[in-house]
Amino acid sequence: SVNPDLGGERQTASFSVERLTALLDGGVEQTQIRRAVVEAIESDPVFSRENQYFQTQNERYEAAVRKAVHLQKKMHEMGWTENGPEYKYIYRALSGDVAFLLHRVFMRSISVLGSDRQIAKWIPLATQHKLIGSYAQTELGHGTYLQGLETTAVFDTATQEFILNTPKISAMKWWPGDMGRSATHTVVFAQLYIHGKCYGIHPFIVQIRSLQDHSLCPGITAGDIGPKMNFEHIDNGYLLLKNVRVPRENMLSKFCEVRPDGTYVRQGSQQINYFTMTTVRVSLISDEVLIPLKKACTIAIRYSVVRRQSKLKPGEQEAKILDYQTQQEKLLPQLAAAYAFHFTNDYLQELFDRGYREIQRKNFDMLPELHALSSGFKAMITQHCTAGVEICLRACGGHGYSLLSGLPSLYTKILASCIYEGENTILLLQTARFLIKCFMAASAGQPVPPSVTYLAAVKHGKCPAKNKLDFLSPDIYTEAYQHVAVRLTSSTAAKLQDLIQSGVKKHDAWNQCTVQLVQAAKAHCHYIAVKNFAETVEKLETKAGIQKIMKHLCDLFALHGIFSNTGAFLHDGYTSGAQMDMVTAAYLDLLAVIRKDAVPLVDAFDFTDQSLNSALGSYDGQVYQRLYEWAQKSPTNQMSPAYERYLKPLLHNTLSKL
Amino acid sequence: SVNPDLGGERQTASFSVERLTALLDGGVEQTQIRRAVVEAIESDPVFSRENQYFQTQNERYEAAVRKAVHLQKKMHEMGWTENGPEYKYIYRALSGDVAFLLHRVFMRSISVLGSDRQIAKWIPLATQHKLIGSYAQTELGHGTYLQGLETTAVFDTATQEFILNTPKISAMKWWPGDMGRSATHTVVFAQLYIHGKCYGIHPFIVQIRSLQDHSLCPGITAGDIGPKMNFEHIDNGYLLLKNVRVPRENMLSKFCEVRPDGTYVRQGSQQINYFTMTTVRVSLISDEVLIPLKKACTIAIRYSVVRRQSKLKPGEQEAKILDYQTQQEKLLPQLAAAYAFHFTNDYLQELFDRGYREIQRKNFDMLPELHALSSGFKAMITQHCTAGVEICLRACGGHGYSLLSGLPSLYTKILASCIYEGENTILLLQTARFLIKCFMAASAGQPVPPSVTYLAAVKHGKCPAKNKLDFLSPDIYTEAYQHVAVRLTSSTAAKLQDLIQSGVKKHDAWNQCTVQLVQAAKAHCHYIAVKNFAETVEKLETKAGIQKIMKHLCDLFALHGIFSNTGAFLHDGYTSGAQMDMVTAAYLDLLAVIRKDAVPLVDAFDFTDQSLNSALGSYDGQVYQRLYEWAQKSPTNQMSPAYERYLKPLLHNTLSKL
Repeated sequence: SVNPDLGGERQTASFSVERLTALLDGGVEQTQIRRAVVEAIESDPVFSRENQYFQTQNERYEAAVRKAVHLQKKMHEMGWTENGPEYKYIYRALSGDVAFLLHRVFMRSISVLGSDRQIAKWIPLATQHKLIGSYAQTELGHGTYLQGLETTAVFDTATQEFILNTPKISAMKWWPGDMGRSATHTVVFAQLYIHGKCYGIHPFIVQIRSLQDHSLCPGITAGDIGPKMNFEHIDNGYLLLKNVRVPRENMLSKFCEVRPDGTYVRQGSQQINYFTMTTVRVSLISDEVLIPLKKACTIAIRYSVVRRQSKLKPGEQEAKILDYQTQQEKLLPQLAAAYAFHFTNDYLQELFDRGYREIQRKNFDMLPELHALSSGFKAMITQHCTAGVEICLRACGGHGYSLLSGLPSLYTKILASCIYEGENTILLLQTARFLIKCFMAASAGQPVPPSVTYLAAVKHGKCPAKNKLDFLSPDIYTEAYQHVAVRLTSSTAAKLQDLIQSGVKKHDAWNQCTVQLVQAAKAHCHYIAVKNFAETVEKLETKAGIQKIMKHLCDLFALHGIFSNTGAFLHDGYTSGAQMDMVTAAYLDLLAVIRKDAVPLVDAFDFTDQSLNSALGSYDGQVYQRLYEWAQKSPTNQMSPAYERYLKPLLHNTLSKL
Repeated sequence: SVNPDLGGERQTASFSVERLTALLDGGVEQTQIRRAVVEAIESDPVFSRENQYFQTQNERYEAAVRKAVHLQKKMHEMGWTENGPEYKYIYRALSGDVAFLLHRVFMRSISVLGSDRQIAKWIPLATQHKLIGSYAQTELGHGTYLQGLETTAVFDTATQEFILNTPKISAMKWWPGDMGRSATHTVVFAQLYIHGKCYGIHPFIVQIRSLQDHSLCPGITAGDIGPKMNFEHIDNGYLLLKNVRVPRENMLSKFCEVRPDGTYVRQGSQQINYFTMTTVRVSLISDEVLIPLKKACTIAIRYSVVRRQSKLKPGEQEAKILDYQTQQEKLLPQLAAAYAFHFTNDYLQELFDRGYREIQRKNFDMLPELHALSSGFKAMITQHCTAGVEICLRACGGHGYSLLSGLPSLYTKILASCIYEGENTILLLQTARFLIKCFMAASAGQPVPPSVTYLAAVKHGKCPAKNKLDFLSPDIYTEAYQHVAVRLTSSTAAKLQDLIQSGVKKHDAWNQCTVQLVQAAKAHCHYIAVKNFAETVEKLETKAGIQKIMKHLCDLFALHGIFSNTGAFLHDGYTSGAQMDMVTAAYLDLLAVIRKDAVPLVDAFDFTDQSLNSALGSYDGQVYQRLYEWAQKSPTNQMSPAYERYLKPLLHNTLSKL
């Protein structure tokens, strides 16, 4: 039975939830395929996440391995293949709670970096799980700056082997997933030395554990790096190499080869390799970043119409907390952001598909733009979504703090996305470097990529809005975002130029501008996200009910960004204080409008109760019942030795020494 | 041996670290007492936190009980008493990792709410631990809004007993600490009914577990609420009452009494009771909020001078990450905030001591101001410090994400402070209500409390700063903060008036202004924090070296607040865009100045390695060594059944069904 406070919210939806779900999935057929996968996974008890919040790191690891192994069987049974339409929904249906993700990265790195011969040798072994792979790049002392890696691989002409070593503690491999306990092989990135000369970082396939009994191979020290904020199910590992010899054939050699006599040969273009890095950043957005935010919104919004607290008007029943303006102001902008970034993700995917086709045709022109966009959006979206999940958690008060709400683990997991696959600040500075370069080029009348042509067209007007309704016009707010992005880019470029002209060294000048460069990169991405959302809404013209609510969300996303960052828009007088008051009024009005459809808007994300795994967020809204039932199963409700050991003696005063 | 990258930072300190430590402690004698307590606690292996990051919730609970029991013995041995000067340092030295905190709240509630007879009966029992107490207020369905609590206590004239019941699931007590597994007694808050009439919420002493064998008493269902984001060591509990009878004498009756015939008598003034609530909010700031931020700053800043990554200049050694402007901009404002709020806390403590003296003299005039300040600062400081700890965590990249860094548990623990003892948004709205009231009174020429007299003196000038150095003048920035606080309060008051005059009901009008009211309350607190920091710095005139660096931190705290919230200052043209550029320049300059003293400034917090419990933050900076050593001790480095069960069959292809 559905809690009537929640059920009532569904009866007044201004649009068809089912049609919106199909829109988000990319079509009715996709929705069907996704639901079939979810059904198959969730009805199989081996994939259960039921006791997850009670499990230790060891138990989580064991379950993830069990699921990974069982998944092979399941895929076979169901006829799912890695190239089939179901594949992309499997990981989502498992909520990522499965081992051997790095085994896939191991395989991909061989496919991308290996020679045809290496691919022919290793990929079948990996596919059949005759080995378990990992990917050992990051070291204790080096993450972002790959050139700084300290592991060495010295070529020994006599034996035709590379000798791998960890010369000091900071060179120890640290973090590789699946490596702490599972992997038998890994791709080690090391500085290549031939005849005493360093040729930089290269990848080597290294066996680390016996295929017979899983014991560590000679010269190998490896293990698990211990507890983390989340990812308990993954055995992130460490690896120390001492004179480990691998045959010459184990250096992945699509782009560089070492000949038997020690001659170093570079071959082919590595550009496609850089492209792989950027696509990884885009592909993580959907599963690792958007889904957690959508789940958090679903949980917090459903809870906020079930939870009643205090009174809006004296004498009335206690109010649903979502009826408080402050609660709306916490949650609804996160909901709008979830939709905004969903469409940003579509935009990026499309752009990258196009980029990929161009690259296949040996046209690499799009690469700088793709790199800048993928870096900037990875940083911007992970940052926004992480903050959004935290807001959802806190908006649920004490119950949000219970692991049983599901929110703490969503938060502690999504937080990692700000760090992995490129630390966000570093990525934003990459985007900024591209922006500055393009701004300079555009100022000099040179052509620039499509996403930054706006930098050339600096307009010095003022925002034309005359009343609060004007701020519901996409032209008005998109232009305002554009103006800010141009201003921040141009003023930082000017500061940079001034510093250099005044004699500051180029690198120092850059460092002194980085705080502002980061702001410019964020403004650029925010502008594109707003513009893309507005354009997406426009294209929905045939779907009236959906278009209307999406327009509201687009407006909210845009106005929330202005409201939260008014200074950027006020700075040069483009927007006046009076106009900012209109923004505030329009923004607060929108909250009350969207609040009416809040529950249908999260229902459209179509999460099952199992995938939410939340006592607060279930479809039926029976929050208190579920919290109580789940708590009773907690291991903390078993007898503790603390009673006999400490409490009993204390209470019975046999602690006589007191 | 100290890592030379860290050691070098200490040689160039511009001030005496030892003298700054004494200043923070409130005198050299206090430092000595604190260190003696820390030494006694940390040298006792029973209090060890060594394996904390590897322990389960059950193990953490058991350890916390063990420590609580051992602490009694320790205090006796050391001659420490609850009224002695050492007492306040014990909890800090234990990093809060101890049970029976609610036992103290149980005792305090009896002292404050109980009659002399009740105090005489229960306090000795509690002091001697003949019982273990808890405090059962919050329910599954009710936290903030006390009047909404649903537990009932019906007076039975025939037996002279109260009959306590949990009428429905949302009325179940939920969250009380020490209650899930330890407590034998608790203070239950329930709606009092006499002859069918409800007299509102009252406190009742209820025994829940047998003193003989710890089994649950008749009519009692109780247990642990399960896993949380942190506080694994605390057995937060649930409690369900079914016709539980307690004698008439068990209702705490300092302020209200039920006579044998059922007559309800109210006596004395409850105002001192409200004062207790406000002092709890102030007292938590130091231990639960400031210390975690100071620890996080210590860890992140020490790590940032040891970690080298990428190059600032080509050809040079890799740079310490603290030399990057973006890293400075993350960490140094948190350091400045830690100092700012340290002094805010001193200011609040002093104010509350004064308030307490007045109340003893039956003068309750200060109560509304104290309530507004304690509410606003509790919200503002918990919010800022929580965000600060998260920034520190993320600024340490991957290693910050390891539990071994200490940062995740600091974050997950401090986060709770935004929720408990009054949810922050609710508290800010209390402050706002006070501000609006005082603004109205001041506008009408009536007298208002000292902290808000500035609301009366609205000045319509502009910020007089002419260059970036002017923004290092406390008068300039304090005035700017004041201006913003007045503007936000007055404009929200005007909006509220307008709505009401246009016919909107008072409660609806209030709700429609709450987002802006929260802004006004924050601005008020921020203004007072800045002003107080500036005044504190001024009083340090005889301590030259320290005054200089504190002045820098005060400037940074103030300018960071403007830089992060430029819109509030630009909105009505009080500050111009050109002046905002000066703020930015002055702010970025300050980062480079304070960076030089960053390590001495965190050293002055004087945390021992044991209390930091961080592989990244130790005094000697041997980060990588420590991470490796600790990881090897992790239970995840023991043999897992996953190998025999899943990996071996997979690798040996005996999973023939595939």
